[in-house]
Amino acid sequence: MKKVVTFGEILARLTPPGFKKMSQTNQLEIYYGGTETNVSASLSILGCNAVHVSRVSDDFLGNAAISNLKSNGIDTSFVQKGEEPLGLYFVEPGAVVRSGVISYNRNHSAFRALEPNSIPWAAIFKDADWFHWTGITPAHSENNFLALKEGLMVAKEMGITVSCDPAYRAGLWKYGRKPEDVLKGLVALSDVFIGGAEQFNELLDTDFSLSDEDFKLGSKALMAEFPKLKKIYDKTRTGKNASWHQIEARMWNGKNMFSCEPIEITHIVDRIGTGDAFAAGAIFGELNNFAEKDSVAFANAACAIKHTIEGDANLADFNEINQIAGGNTSGRLIR
Amino acid sequence: MKKVVTFGEILARLTPPGFKKMSQTNQLEIYYGGTETNVSASLSILGCNAVHVSRVSDDFLGNAAISNLKSNGIDTSFVQKGEEPLGLYFVEPGAVVRSGVISYNRNHSAFRALEPNSIPWAAIFKDADWFHWTGITPAHSENNFLALKEGLMVAKEMGITVSCDPAYRAGLWKYGRKPEDVLKGLVALSDVFIGGAEQFNELLDTDFSLSDEDFKLGSKALMAEFPKLKKIYDKTRTGKNASWHQIEARMWNGKNMFSCEPIEITHIVDRIGTGDAFAAGAIFGELNNFAEKDSVAFANAACAIKHTIEGDANLADFNEINQIAGGNTSGRLIR
Amino acid sequence: MKKVVTFGEILARLTPPGFKKMSQTNQLEIYYGGTETNVSASLSILGCNAVHVSRVSDDFLGNAAISNLKSNGIDTSFVQKGEEPLGLYFVEPGAVVRSGVISYNRNHSAFRALEPNSIPWAAIFKDADWFHWTGITPAHSENNFLALKEGLMVAKEMGITVSCDPAYRAGLWKYGRKPEDVLKGLVALSDVFIGGAEQFNELLDTDFSLSDEDFKLGSKALMAEFPKLKKIYDKTRTGKNASWHQIEARMWNGKNMFSCEPIEITHIVDRIGTGDAFAAGAIFGELNNFAEKDSVAFANAACAIKHTIEGDANLADFNEINQIAGGNTSGRLIR
Amino acid sequence: MKKVVTFGEILARLTPPGFKKMSQTNQLEIYYGGTETNVSASLSILGCNAVHVSRVSDDFLGNAAISNLKSNGIDTSFVQKGEEPLGLYFVEPGAVVRSGVISYNRNHSAFRALEPNSIPWAAIFKDADWFHWTGITPAHSENNFLALKEGLMVAKEMGITVSCDPAYRAGLWKYGRKPEDVLKGLVALSDVFIGGAEQFNELLDTDFSLSDEDFKLGSKALMAEFPKLKKIYDKTRTGKNASWHQIEARMWNGKNMFSCEPIEITHIVDRIGTGDAFAAGAIFGELNNFAEKDSVAFANAACAIKHTIEGDANLADFNEINQIAGGNTSGRLIR
Amino acid sequence: MKKVVTFGEILARLTPPGFKKMSQTNQLEIYYGGTETNVSASLSILGCNAVHVSRVSDDFLGNAAISNLKSNGIDTSFVQKGEEPLGLYFVEPGAVVRSGVISYNRNHSAFRALEPNSIPWAAIFKDADWFHWTGITPAHSENNFLALKEGLMVAKEMGITVSCDPAYRAGLWKYGRKPEDVLKGLVALSDVFIGGAEQFNELLDTDFSLSDEDFKLGSKALMAEFPKLKKIYDKTRTGKNASWHQIEARMWNGKNMFSCEPIEITHIVDRIGTGDAFAAGAIFGELNNFAEKDSVAFANAACAIKHTIEGDANLADFNEINQIAGGNTSGRLIR
Amino acid sequence: MKKVVTFGEILARLTPPGFKKMSQTNQLEIYYGGTETNVSASLSILGCNAVHVSRVSDDFLGNAAISNLKSNGIDTSFVQKGEEPLGLYFVEPGAVVRSGVISYNRNHSAFRALEPNSIPWAAIFKDADWFHWTGITPAHSENNFLALKEGLMVAKEMGITVSCDPAYRAGLWKYGRKPEDVLKGLVALSDVFIGGAEQFNELLDTDFSLSDEDFKLGSKALMAEFPKLKKIYDKTRTGKNASWHQIEARMWNGKNMFSCEPIEITHIVDRIGTGDAFAAGAIFGELNNFAEKDSVAFANAACAIKHTIEGDANLADFNEINQIAGGNTSGRLIR
Repeated sequence: MKKVVTFGEILARLTPPGFKKMSQTNQLEIYYGGTETNVSASLSILGCNAVHVSRVSDDFLGNAAISNLKSNGIDTSFVQKGEEPLGLYFVEPGAVVRSGVISYNRNHSAFRALEPNSIPWAAIFKDADWFHWTGITPAHSENNFLALKEGLMVAKEMGITVSCDPAYRAGLWKYGRKPEDVLKGLVALSDVFIGGAEQFNELLDTDFSLSDEDFKLGSKALMAEFPKLKKIYDKTRTGKNASWHQIEARMWNGKNMFSCEPIEITHIVDRIGTGDAFAAGAIFGELNNFAEKDSVAFANAACAIKHTIEGDANLADFNEINQIAGGNTSGRLIR
Repeated sequence: MKKVVTFGEILARLTPPGFKKMSQTNQLEIYYGGTETNVSASLSILGCNAVHVSRVSDDFLGNAAISNLKSNGIDTSFVQKGEEPLGLYFVEPGAVVRSGVISYNRNHSAFRALEPNSIPWAAIFKDADWFHWTGITPAHSENNFLALKEGLMVAKEMGITVSCDPAYRAGLWKYGRKPEDVLKGLVALSDVFIGGAEQFNELLDTDFSLSDEDFKLGSKALMAEFPKLKKIYDKTRTGKNASWHQIEARMWNGKNMFSCEPIEITHIVDRIGTGDAFAAGAIFGELNNFAEKDSVAFANAACAIKHTIEGDANLADFNEINQIAGGNTSGRLIR
Repeated sequence: MKKVVTFGEILARLTPPGFKKMSQTNQLEIYYGGTETNVSASLSILGCNAVHVSRVSDDFLGNAAISNLKSNGIDTSFVQKGEEPLGLYFVEPGAVVRSGVISYNRNHSAFRALEPNSIPWAAIFKDADWFHWTGITPAHSENNFLALKEGLMVAKEMGITVSCDPAYRAGLWKYGRKPEDVLKGLVALSDVFIGGAEQFNELLDTDFSLSDEDFKLGSKALMAEFPKLKKIYDKTRTGKNASWHQIEARMWNGKNMFSCEPIEITHIVDRIGTGDAFAAGAIFGELNNFAEKDSVAFANAACAIKHTIEGDANLADFNEINQIAGGNTSGRLIR
Repeated sequence: MKKVVTFGEILARLTPPGFKKMSQTNQLEIYYGGTETNVSASLSILGCNAVHVSRVSDDFLGNAAISNLKSNGIDTSFVQKGEEPLGLYFVEPGAVVRSGVISYNRNHSAFRALEPNSIPWAAIFKDADWFHWTGITPAHSENNFLALKEGLMVAKEMGITVSCDPAYRAGLWKYGRKPEDVLKGLVALSDVFIGGAEQFNELLDTDFSLSDEDFKLGSKALMAEFPKLKKIYDKTRTGKNASWHQIEARMWNGKNMFSCEPIEITHIVDRIGTGDAFAAGAIFGELNNFAEKDSVAFANAACAIKHTIEGDANLADFNEINQIAGGNTSGRLIR
Repeated sequence: MKKVVTFGEILARLTPPGFKKMSQTNQLEIYYGGTETNVSASLSILGCNAVHVSRVSDDFLGNAAISNLKSNGIDTSFVQKGEEPLGLYFVEPGAVVRSGVISYNRNHSAFRALEPNSIPWAAIFKDADWFHWTGITPAHSENNFLALKEGLMVAKEMGITVSCDPAYRAGLWKYGRKPEDVLKGLVALSDVFIGGAEQFNELLDTDFSLSDEDFKLGSKALMAEFPKLKKIYDKTRTGKNASWHQIEARMWNGKNMFSCEPIEITHIVDRIGTGDAFAAGAIFGELNNFAEKDSVAFANAACAIKHTIEGDANLADFNEINQIAGGNTSGRLIR
Repeated sequence: MKKVVTFGEILARLTPPGFKKMSQTNQLEIYYGGTETNVSASLSILGCNAVHVSRVSDDFLGNAAISNLKSNGIDTSFVQKGEEPLGLYFVEPGAVVRSGVISYNRNHSAFRALEPNSIPWAAIFKDADWFHWTGITPAHSENNFLALKEGLMVAKEMGITVSCDPAYRAGLWKYGRKPEDVLKGLVALSDVFIGGAEQFNELLDTDFSLSDEDFKLGSKALMAEFPKLKKIYDKTRTGKNASWHQIEARMWNGKNMFSCEPIEITHIVDRIGTGDAFAAGAIFGELNNFAEKDSVAFANAACAIKHTIEGDANLADFNEINQIAGGNTSGRLIR
């Protein structure tokens, strides 16, 4: 069983049922997520030993969050507890021409207050095969940045493969550091890059388009800048509206580009966490040495099926994803 | 802040959750609406001072209805209370090829019993910029017709701009008067007409089609008959089925026709109240002196987004509608 | 009023709300169904006197199942009770590319234990016009097979018209007999066959395709083998994915093929029981001597509207189905 | 199987979940009831052939009401349909010191418009053992009074035993007749009287107290005035508050009084319909010739258990009630 | 109509349905409250013009909170909006021997960041009769303390009657000031004190017990220290367990003590906000010059009925409270 | 951290919401439990390393059950999967005088089919401190009896302390063996006995009453028969009705009896699993060498608080239970 480590904030998502506005309802649904733990949930369900490192509130909400991670089989031994509240986000869901809206409440969360030198990285990485981080974590606070950097240094020393999803989130990064500087330093310590033109341009100050040609050129440029990188996974999304998207994926292995059939999501159930599902799919392919084409198709299928699953994490198992990766997108009822 | 007055029945809508038949459920959802108060709700949320004049039951249901109007910011100072019950309607929602079905219970409602000379119109219209009425109100009862007529006479005296949505509802008009006669008299007191070929033909005994050409010709004919009219707003709907419509709008200002891009609603959430959302959008454009093209686009966008909102009223705010009016119908998630 | 008899297991369906995975919810929805009682429910709602023969658990769940059948007007006088539990099935609903999954719990149900000679068929068939069976019943157990065979023998003696939906379900048939042998013997006692190429090939060991030409050839071959058959009703389904299907129907009356317009179900609400809705529609057309074309269109419309109704049974009434059969698939709101 | 006929309005009850005020919720629970059909539901569940005569709206709500009656096994063959809406009532539930509040919407219901000579009483009473009426029905309208009177005359001719619960409801009786006059005429046609001091005093213009002594004296006086009466069943209720009552019952058979142990309802779930449950219990005892003491205890137990059942009707079966009637009020879990 | 002003944080309460632990549910109920706005809600429902001054998040949650206040008729014109999140609290409800548990998330809320000199107190107090504050507000932050002090100074100048509920909440007061010092200064500016032995002892460093004698002595001591005080309202609570309390009230007017009958709450629905309901009741009595005994009884009744109402605010109207104050605690169903 | 092993069936509980009858609802709540895993859940939440050994269905329901156990921190590494369905039970909840009713569906469950020699007991018991079994497991099937016996033999060899709750369930024991014989053999291998007069009498064929005196005599007799036993924990329950119980506990350590204060549960939320909560409390006291009096009080408190928690397992943590064990049964709100 492969061992994967993730590190990041655990958030509770609070959202009105159906398509109600917040002012229309006295009921909310609650889900637990966060970009990195979404990856760990999916990998755990796919059969990996997934360890998530984080810090939650020392109250019944923090306990419920841990309980939820455990229910997906995630090892929560290294989740710390603190006096600050659990990070939250509220979502008013969108549909068709109406945008969903997210309102965050995590500026003073238990995770942001995590002490940099409080994490026993060497113990955590013992026997580990993989470490995954995202650009959200270093965007929160100096503490979070330092803790992540520590982890990456230890991972390097211990020879753990590292993947990154350096999603640049403009609304964060309030504590002083410049995102480009921080992210460059961290990407340099990574082996697998999950991102495309948008991320290339942020890191390299370039102007690549979404075309396949530019994906190849950008990938080359990125690998030139960050020579530790061996693989670049990218997905693109074209949307008719909030309820109907099409997704497509491609990968650069330093020499060739591999792509897969686009998948049309005609009736989106929940769009949140689909990027994390993609990342988990790509990591799973890499961990299990899938052929390049298969790995791309698996990541795209993982992303696709997440659009039909409520909540933040991709709860689909290997068979469900693999069937789609194999080209069967009929969704036929299984008796 | 613009002040707008509306007058009409407040109804409670009772509907099974999801797509259940009435016989399948022991739970109903309750919403409060009514064609004119839907307009006031939208205008209040858009930032107007909206006063709704009505009469509800003097019980906890009437109180809940008032409470709901207040929650949207509507001024309910001129909502009277009476012994008769609140008007109700039950809806079995439709989907795809299945028609939704409405069953009304309002023949003996508190609103129908409203005394004609009980409304202090002059006080209500003080500082008002606009008065909106629909063809539903005079269709209920002699009392309702007379009260509306009083209001229109006072509005004329006080120079208030008047809009009308003379929707002819065949199932009403049980108290004796002929709809054409009544509506003609009331439209003659109005400045902005919301309607198209169907309404033209009812009022003028003509046979206009839904074509742009006929919209122009019909508008001219209507303005010839009712010289107080200055603007005519019309929307057209083409539907694949109960779950998928396309809407389009146009306006005649006495000289030219203005239209906008059609918007496709691929996954309808709630179709009720979309016409009222359109009316509110048109009134808002007029109140704020939008350019003609912008006003049409705003009304169409308001109508479009209402299809994604549960309940009777359009709860979208200015930014949400304006983004769609500006052509962004992607429904992209806002973080 | 026509009298119709059906015989088969009553199942409770347990399913998470919305699109949740079983592990995501502490709430389930419960519906009562079963392929043959779904047919009786639809025919009862269409105005027939529908008698369903079955056996349920002698506990509050069995009582609730009977209560549910009664609520649809089904005569449950011949539903026996036993110590074994009610048959159940759990469904994780699918969407788009995600397959719904069914997990059955009925191997030791009250129905399977029904004693063959315990059913007073002659009394049940008194004044009856029709008897309907499916291939699910003889697939359960020797007891169920024998009881059905008894019923068919009595029906033959009493001259009752018999329809069959010999759906071959590979997951069943665990008690020893070979499905082809059993089904052949039972189809030989039937007058109306509901099925197409798949069923032809199972029964005749042929290789017909889904083409119209093969439907005609297959129907001829089937009638040659089973000379009691007078009509063959078939529906075909093409699916974009789990949320979007198109259905089409055709019928062979021994001489000619009759077909109807395909209907597109762009937003599937519940796909389960759509085949049973089709069967009930076909039986209703036959019982009421509809013209062939009308009967096919009615069956197809019944199948179509079921996709928009939650639960196992088609709860649509005659007017709702007939409007669609007549070509109005707009799903326009009815006030 | 005993056959019992009841006659009266079917109402839908709409009530917020839990203890919410109407203005606090966007969800309501819906139940179907009405004092006489509550009696028929209980008797049907106890094993009688219960026929309920009524008139409902010809829409999906009326259909749902009929469907609900059928689910309890009630014969609805004589339920008419009409254009007027179904009678409704809204309830804000009470608790402890807070009173529950009921708001009715039934002044113009389908039931009130029932034509007096439209009911085939002789056919309905064929093979019937019992007819039950209450004081609510003649309080609605002249039509309802006349229809009931017709039924009582036919019942008398056909020798059907008649029970009455002449509950005088001050809020009704708006159509002109004086309640005392009407009720006296109808009670004179009845055999079993369900009521006590309050009803005695209304009918006889007396001033009896709730004491056992006065119950005896009042019963004698009532029987003197209405010589057809053979039994008088009465229950008394003492309440700590809205959540905690104690109930007690007694009966006069013309010679002796029979009483039973009081039952304490320490945690009331639903108080509505408890009087109807009592009536059904008394009728069941009489129909089955229970010993007097047993019949009183059974009626009291039926009343008691209804306090623990949601909705209007007593859904408890014979064993559940009989266990309590036998003195076992422990509510011990049955595995 | 009396005008009352309140000032304080608006919080959203998030709580599992029924008695579930947070880890057991994927649904939460949401209510809007806060000790001071609970008082304004009750006074608004009782018929006062209630103005609540606060600051909420500038997102859909802040809007929903304002919408909720408006639904109760509160004037929200002086509610500011800011970038920080809305204050929240999560509750795991208790029952019997299980304690309910509250977890707050409001240390960095929009309210705490309210600028002291941003409130137009003079405009707000125009025509006002009353200002109410509690000890929660100055416990949050220096900003909140200063803003409140400003308000009290203006109120003094303008001759507005001031009531205070100086509840000392140990978990707050993190910003540096000593609670006793702050509260003493603010109580000195108040006319009506809502509190008892606990508050006396905190403010005076005394050791009074809960006895009537000590209430009198303590009240005298308090008035000696704070000569502006004219009335002291106190309620005492004795609890069997979390589900069953008894409440009692008393008042000192400088000369005499007035008390009322205790009320037993045998089945608590929601215990939160009962102290605020008491305060609103006392203020209402004072505003309307109730006789002392009646004012105490009204406050106690208001407190009692709140225990039966879900959410934070007492939604009972005048009649509901007055009936209980008059001694009718039977909770009898009102038809 | 103490390691505890339990062995037994995992069941899904399906129950209508509130107090609804099964026929009244289209929604059910689902909980996962089973007498032994309830013990493991409580001990896990109290901080033990709890390993539960079982066998579930190899479908999404079995997965959801495992997921639920994991969410409580239980180690499910030794839960096998099989083709048979998960064991189920349906509950109609009781209240006051109405008995709750349970209907089981587990005669052919995945657990019953567990192969006796398939469990690696030695590996499971490595480093374990405790093994707990109940009389339910050997009552299911020969397989289950043999597997348990194997476990007990290995536990004996490895010196693991064994507790038993030999609850004799008459409805089980269908596979041939006599319960007394089986249970005697298994109790002989146990160290701590959880049970009282009822169990004594079943095992010893005696006639002890519930008195303290008989508890002492019975305990002595039991220990004489089963010399390995060192402690006997017993709880007694007296119930006003289904909603109101009082519980009390006592313990015999071979020399003295220890007892504790009774606790009154005035408003029962969920009575199922309270005996398992007691067992877990007793085991926790023993594992942590509590003083005898404290251990009895802790077990009784654990039992008490479970009555206020929905579902099968006691989700209360150490502080919640310990506070009650220490005598604080006030359920005071914790802020």
